Amino acid sequence: MTDGTPKTLGGLAARVAEVTPCRVAGDPATVIRQVCHPRDLPGPDALVPAWDPRLARLAELAEVAAAVLVGEDVDLPPGLPALVAERPRLALGVVLGGFARSWQPEPGIDPTARVHASARVAETARVGAFVVVGPGCEVAEEAALHPHVSLGAGVVVGAGSVLHAGARVGDRCRLGQRVVLMPNAVVGADGFSFERPDDGGPWAKIPSIGDVVLEDDVELGACACVDRANLGTTRIGRGTKIDNLVQVGHNNRLGEHCLLCGQVGISGSCEVGDGVVFAGQAGVSEHRNLGAGSVVMARAAVFRDLPDGSVVFGTPARPRAEWLRNQAAANRAGALRERVKELEARLEALEAQLSSAGR
Amino acid sequence: MTDGTPKTLGGLAARVAEVTPCRVAGDPATVIRQVCHPRDLPGPDALVPAWDPRLARLAELAEVAAAVLVGEDVDLPPGLPALVAERPRLALGVVLGGFARSWQPEPGIDPTARVHASARVAETARVGAFVVVGPGCEVAEEAALHPHVSLGAGVVVGAGSVLHAGARVGDRCRLGQRVVLMPNAVVGADGFSFERPDDGGPWAKIPSIGDVVLEDDVELGACACVDRANLGTTRIGRGTKIDNLVQVGHNNRLGEHCLLCGQVGISGSCEVGDGVVFAGQAGVSEHRNLGAGSVVMARAAVFRDLPDGSVVFGTPARPRAEWLRNQAAANRAGALRERVKELEARLEALEAQLSSAGR
Amino acid sequence: MTDGTPKTLGGLAARVAEVTPCRVAGDPATVIRQVCHPRDLPGPDALVPAWDPRLARLAELAEVAAAVLVGEDVDLPPGLPALVAERPRLALGVVLGGFARSWQPEPGIDPTARVHASARVAETARVGAFVVVGPGCEVAEEAALHPHVSLGAGVVVGAGSVLHAGARVGDRCRLGQRVVLMPNAVVGADGFSFERPDDGGPWAKIPSIGDVVLEDDVELGACACVDRANLGTTRIGRGTKIDNLVQVGHNNRLGEHCLLCGQVGISGSCEVGDGVVFAGQAGVSEHRNLGAGSVVMARAAVFRDLPDGSVVFGTPARPRAEWLRNQAAANRAGALRERVKELEARLEALEAQLSSAGR
Repeated sequence: MTDGTPKTLGGLAARVAEVTPCRVAGDPATVIRQVCHPRDLPGPDALVPAWDPRLARLAELAEVAAAVLVGEDVDLPPGLPALVAERPRLALGVVLGGFARSWQPEPGIDPTARVHASARVAETARVGAFVVVGPGCEVAEEAALHPHVSLGAGVVVGAGSVLHAGARVGDRCRLGQRVVLMPNAVVGADGFSFERPDDGGPWAKIPSIGDVVLEDDVELGACACVDRANLGTTRIGRGTKIDNLVQVGHNNRLGEHCLLCGQVGISGSCEVGDGVVFAGQAGVSEHRNLGAGSVVMARAAVFRDLPDGSVVFGTPARPRAEWLRNQAAANRAGALRERVKELEARLEALEAQLSSAGR
Repeated sequence: MTDGTPKTLGGLAARVAEVTPCRVAGDPATVIRQVCHPRDLPGPDALVPAWDPRLARLAELAEVAAAVLVGEDVDLPPGLPALVAERPRLALGVVLGGFARSWQPEPGIDPTARVHASARVAETARVGAFVVVGPGCEVAEEAALHPHVSLGAGVVVGAGSVLHAGARVGDRCRLGQRVVLMPNAVVGADGFSFERPDDGGPWAKIPSIGDVVLEDDVELGACACVDRANLGTTRIGRGTKIDNLVQVGHNNRLGEHCLLCGQVGISGSCEVGDGVVFAGQAGVSEHRNLGAGSVVMARAAVFRDLPDGSVVFGTPARPRAEWLRNQAAANRAGALRERVKELEARLEALEAQLSSAGR
Repeated sequence: MTDGTPKTLGGLAARVAEVTPCRVAGDPATVIRQVCHPRDLPGPDALVPAWDPRLARLAELAEVAAAVLVGEDVDLPPGLPALVAERPRLALGVVLGGFARSWQPEPGIDPTARVHASARVAETARVGAFVVVGPGCEVAEEAALHPHVSLGAGVVVGAGSVLHAGARVGDRCRLGQRVVLMPNAVVGADGFSFERPDDGGPWAKIPSIGDVVLEDDVELGACACVDRANLGTTRIGRGTKIDNLVQVGHNNRLGEHCLLCGQVGISGSCEVGDGVVFAGQAGVSEHRNLGAGSVVMARAAVFRDLPDGSVVFGTPARPRAEWLRNQAAANRAGALRERVKELEARLEALEAQLSSAGR
């Protein structure tokens, strides 16, 4: 919840300075009661992020906003106070953190919640309406389980983690501290692992008796899924952020501080290094190793191992230079055919000329 | 629920005529008690949609069905009554609407539901089992919240909206009138917005303090997700229909009467004009503008702005003509290499001939 | 739940032999209390699957494990007991089945569950906390409905089926025996079927009054969706396995023993033969027929009908040979342009030579 108290530009700058260099232009005592998008109607108490000239016209904002948040390369109109930051998006994160407010269940266990007698729930944890906590679970300090969350048996939820409405965590899976599960996210469904007998009979299921570990500060998007391992652990490294509708299959091991954008799919048994970024709808086939710091561009599909620091595009995914060359060639393929056609005509003429000359 | 009373072909035609020109062939008093797919076993009281010759043989249907629903270009066998419509699929929609039946919670608030004291629920609204309604919510007349729906704080649900089982709506999001959320749909999860500090430290989250507005008559599919804005509003225009497992990221603004088919992904901060159609598994990168009436074909990935009325294919998405040319060239690339190889041989022969002649 | 009793290598072999030929190397009385992934720390009572030399070094495992599970092509170090199977992955499935344990609701109806008076629930069925069972439903012997499952009206759940937390089944849908729904899976949302009137007015909905049938032994992944038919039935054949986040649209009919990997999308009204395999993120457009035994490779998008036994790649999907040829050509398109450029130069030289000779 927002603390409700008004803030000053100078006060905000002090907090921003902890993450990115910044300064105040104009009166640091300027009062800020809200943060507004430039296309909305800001009020005289509003701070407006205004570093993007496509969205924000500073001269106009000077009339209607209390102040703007900008980068260092901006010419401020006179009389418009500003928070000037080296990295304004980082600054925005800090500022918004001061204004964020969201409804949490009350501390304690809601009377409608169903907590197994053998589960341990810290006193400062928040367990909302109709939550189910299975046998042997542990829910640590200041964790919050929103309505309709369900935990299987032996689940561990670390301190300060927030599980939003309808999130599911299967048996024996473990969430670190400050993990966030968005609504209807699913941790610990069975891996998709089937084998067909030689006689063509029904698919035989390889059961998943392993688990999932989400390390500290992992965030998992709405309806995103991380499957349990057949054996051992499907592991998501510390600080990795996963967007909505992403699929992380069984036995994957993802490094720390990775980013998986919307609808990405990591099929199974992959090793993904630290800091790998997957843009939207990218995919990786089974048993691949992706080196640290690699970037898989939007919609790319990785079918081979990638060395550290790779940047790949396309399906199948290729290094940037190769992909660009192929794209360019594809775009000029029609023109190339014209050139070949012309060559054929000219050659034919030449052949005819020589043939008649030789007679 | 179906009203249970039998219908006549003439009565159905009268209702269909409100949306598309139609006429009855045969006896308008023909009694219709059900609508059957042609491949199922129709009965003597069944109306059968039969405009698709791959699915329906009219001569056979004359034996087993009460009547058929067809377009105007069909030769009817004698003795088979028919509803003949200019646009039979529109007609089918009207007819099925008369037979649709689905279980709704009873009007009023189910005794197991958890409605915050500060929430306002209209008397004619239906609030099902285990529903959670947060503080300050407003649920309007004849809205229906199916079992296990949860609303955060300050959510507005417009009149006649239907939220199916397990749908989640986050704090302060607003649904217009007659909005439909399919089961497990999620409105108002946090935007996926992170920024990495220069020192390579952990991803810093840009909090989402904005909201989501689904305007009147929006439909959102099962497990589809619409994220809240960082600031301001993620907005889905009136009458836009969104299929299952679609991702609409933060800060997008979609126009009216768009269509987003299954598994489409709109990454973030896009402006999409009215009437844009996205076929299945299509995608759009961040900060793109898509002009009104555009069509993004199945699996296409849009990385550039599109003018009004664009029709694009492929990854990266290209206009139809360009994409077809590239496809054709790709399909003939092998043949082109053969032609080049032949040219090389012929040229070599010619060069040899001239060289010996010149000696 | 695991039966808790230790197993012997010989006892496991006897069970494995029912599905794939196998033998014991070393002492059949070797006691096995757990199955461990080779990269975890096995204990002296652990059986370790060790047929993949990238993951497992047999000499090391001889020091720390009770026994290994391997294929027939492996040289065992002396003193390491082994279960040697013709198809070790099939064997692993059997072995893990003996160790799998998962928390089930207690037999009977949880006091918090909401079961309609007109529903019939078998005595041996398990109905968990906060489950909703609508009017006229039938839940057969030994079926398990985990917490927060909801069934609409007239749903049938066959014997031994397991519906995990938050799974939704809509009105009149029918699940066969031993069907598994993973958490938050959705069966029976409305088909995505809209038609726009000629006057450009709002999309008119074609209501879905049909249903869904999942035949015996179907498995549906987390957040996977199978839509109901407009008319008649969306049908998933016996033994077909569907992974997380897969979309199966309305009116599809899938054969028996198909496999649909993560994030696959089958748009609507398709006929898919028996044993068809869709790798991850593949897609199929509407009204397609896919012949039995076909394989749609990862990310491929099928826009045409496929004969039996097809193997297709790419977007649009092409037979393997054609796709490889196009890929190769694309990869050599740059080189081809160089060759054409060279040809042009040589031809020009020749033309000049002939032209001067002719003067």
